[in-house]
Amino acid sequence: MKHIGILGASGSVGMQGLDVIREHPHQYRLVSFSVGRNIDIAKAVIEEFKPDVVCVQDEEDAAQLSGFDVKVVTGEEGLLTVAGYHKNDILLNSILGSIGLKPTLHAIEHGIDIALANKETLVVAGEIVMNAARQKGVSILPVDSEHSAIYQCLNGEDQKSVERLIITASGGSFRDLSRADLESVTLEDALNHPNWSMGKKITIDSATMMNKGLEVIEAKWLFDLPVERIETVLHKESIIHSMVEFNDTSVMAQLGTPDMRLPIQYAFSYPDRLPRQAERLDLAAVGQLNFKPMDVERFRCLKFAYDAIRIGGTMPVVMNAVNEVAVAMFLDGKISFLDIETLIEREMQAHDVILNPDLETILEIDADYKSRHYEV
Amino acid sequence: MKHIGILGASGSVGMQGLDVIREHPHQYRLVSFSVGRNIDIAKAVIEEFKPDVVCVQDEEDAAQLSGFDVKVVTGEEGLLTVAGYHKNDILLNSILGSIGLKPTLHAIEHGIDIALANKETLVVAGEIVMNAARQKGVSILPVDSEHSAIYQCLNGEDQKSVERLIITASGGSFRDLSRADLESVTLEDALNHPNWSMGKKITIDSATMMNKGLEVIEAKWLFDLPVERIETVLHKESIIHSMVEFNDTSVMAQLGTPDMRLPIQYAFSYPDRLPRQAERLDLAAVGQLNFKPMDVERFRCLKFAYDAIRIGGTMPVVMNAVNEVAVAMFLDGKISFLDIETLIEREMQAHDVILNPDLETILEIDADYKSRHYEV
Repeated sequence: MKHIGILGASGSVGMQGLDVIREHPHQYRLVSFSVGRNIDIAKAVIEEFKPDVVCVQDEEDAAQLSGFDVKVVTGEEGLLTVAGYHKNDILLNSILGSIGLKPTLHAIEHGIDIALANKETLVVAGEIVMNAARQKGVSILPVDSEHSAIYQCLNGEDQKSVERLIITASGGSFRDLSRADLESVTLEDALNHPNWSMGKKITIDSATMMNKGLEVIEAKWLFDLPVERIETVLHKESIIHSMVEFNDTSVMAQLGTPDMRLPIQYAFSYPDRLPRQAERLDLAAVGQLNFKPMDVERFRCLKFAYDAIRIGGTMPVVMNAVNEVAVAMFLDGKISFLDIETLIEREMQAHDVILNPDLETILEIDADYKSRHYEV
Repeated sequence: MKHIGILGASGSVGMQGLDVIREHPHQYRLVSFSVGRNIDIAKAVIEEFKPDVVCVQDEEDAAQLSGFDVKVVTGEEGLLTVAGYHKNDILLNSILGSIGLKPTLHAIEHGIDIALANKETLVVAGEIVMNAARQKGVSILPVDSEHSAIYQCLNGEDQKSVERLIITASGGSFRDLSRADLESVTLEDALNHPNWSMGKKITIDSATMMNKGLEVIEAKWLFDLPVERIETVLHKESIIHSMVEFNDTSVMAQLGTPDMRLPIQYAFSYPDRLPRQAERLDLAAVGQLNFKPMDVERFRCLKFAYDAIRIGGTMPVVMNAVNEVAVAMFLDGKISFLDIETLIEREMQAHDVILNPDLETILEIDADYKSRHYEV
């Protein structure tokens, strides 16, 4: 029996994490979780899973849970309480944004393995987080389907034999549009992802290809490879979730129907696998898998990500922070789709990079760029 | 430094085995080999690799090697001498036909790992061979691209998590023809395989789909699974070499350009990988991978193979022996392409199966069916 903590339990990944626990009541038990302001979900989760600790946004939210047999904590301090809860064997960090960083480090400090869905943790502070995990002997288990695929391909293999990683990209909502077409796309168009049902932020990040850029940076840290050996390829069916090419030219791939519960479960069950009732992949029914070269002029955010990680230091922090703000502005109808790229490029060009930043510097830069007022 | 023996060094797989040794002179040394009657090849191999032992067909062939600094042995007894040569660490058995069985068992008796390209070894005596290997702690390392793919997919995984094996089939020379079309195909058409450059016997077996049938039977023994859990799928590009579906619905696949040197090298280097200079797989350039359901009415030899292994006992022996004779008759222009199926089906139907046959019985039945005179 593994004890699970979940940060961001009311989000898309968090809810699917609850599904995995629900499907394996003899293997997993939810002991702690956070939900922000989704008090109705919190109540339902407490009643169904009977965890020990819950974190909500503030005292007002906490008051609504006064009748429940659970310890209630609040705010950023509460997130740390959930993250480092002594009964957690694994923390599923599926909180959105760079607010997920401190709880990840706190859990690592307490020797708790991390099932990591929070991309920003590695994007803004990959070196610090991976070093801390190494020192504490903690596993960082990826929950993205792409990184989970690579993790599965590397199972039983010697890291020294890895030639390159090949991350597949569906191309997102606008994969068939030209840059000229992109000038007039709407929010509604952008939120209509062809393959995956996900949260709004990540759906927009898929459409701009920033999501793939964040994944490249994550992969660099998770698998300890220079970005020159991390490639992306367009694969619109999202059936091959990613691949590893070895030095003998053999390529290992992990395939499946698009379902986040598989990588979540694999992170929980690793190094074992657990039976799962779900749709089987039937390649004869799928019929065809398509691949196209990635075009970083078409998908400029991917180029920004490669640039940011090559420059290093605080540059990925700035890229990520401006992207978060820009996507929020787009979701609020304040800027157009292509303005997201414009803002990120402009702010990256203007940023005086600080190399080898410590955690405080990273958090300051992150907060600074998120609090700024941007105009197109 | 691993010492390699090769049975069938002048064949297609054997020659590529020599390539692998040539490319890795610090890792591998050829110490023993057989060539049948190809004395010119024997001379070249002796001069280049300076092995200790060579086996040729008979004394007449042996006389031609009298000036060389090598021990020369002959005939079936000579094959056993090469197979069990005390310096062999690995025996690449790439001899054709059921004559490969006794040398395999002899090498296993001497604790020598087997890189197995000789399909008939497992098709006619899978249970006996795998039991012997288990008792002696000997590894049977597959050299077929399909079984090597599965072996790679299983690396680091728990056998208990395997749900099914999915073996890909190019469809062979006649993949786009109907059964009516097949009535008039010629030998020349049949020898024109679209993806792989192979020997004649296996190229015909690919066109009849018997090759895939033999692979299903091999997979049953290599991976210890009932044939109900071994599926085939048509995949004309031969890029995905085969797949394993696990009980969590995850599918692992091994991909590459069609090149037998990769599975041969993997069998030699397992569990490590060795760098290899060869064409990289570029999926963006390939563009598309296609899959179609297998049709056992169209490809009847595959159905015969499933039937034979389900019935068990001597039935696979008969199927394989009649297939060998029928393919030879087709290659000699004595029967038509579809007559191959007709003969196999007729002889299987007429055979009184012997269950749990010992090695002598298997060899008797094999010799009996190979010496018979068949008429359509």
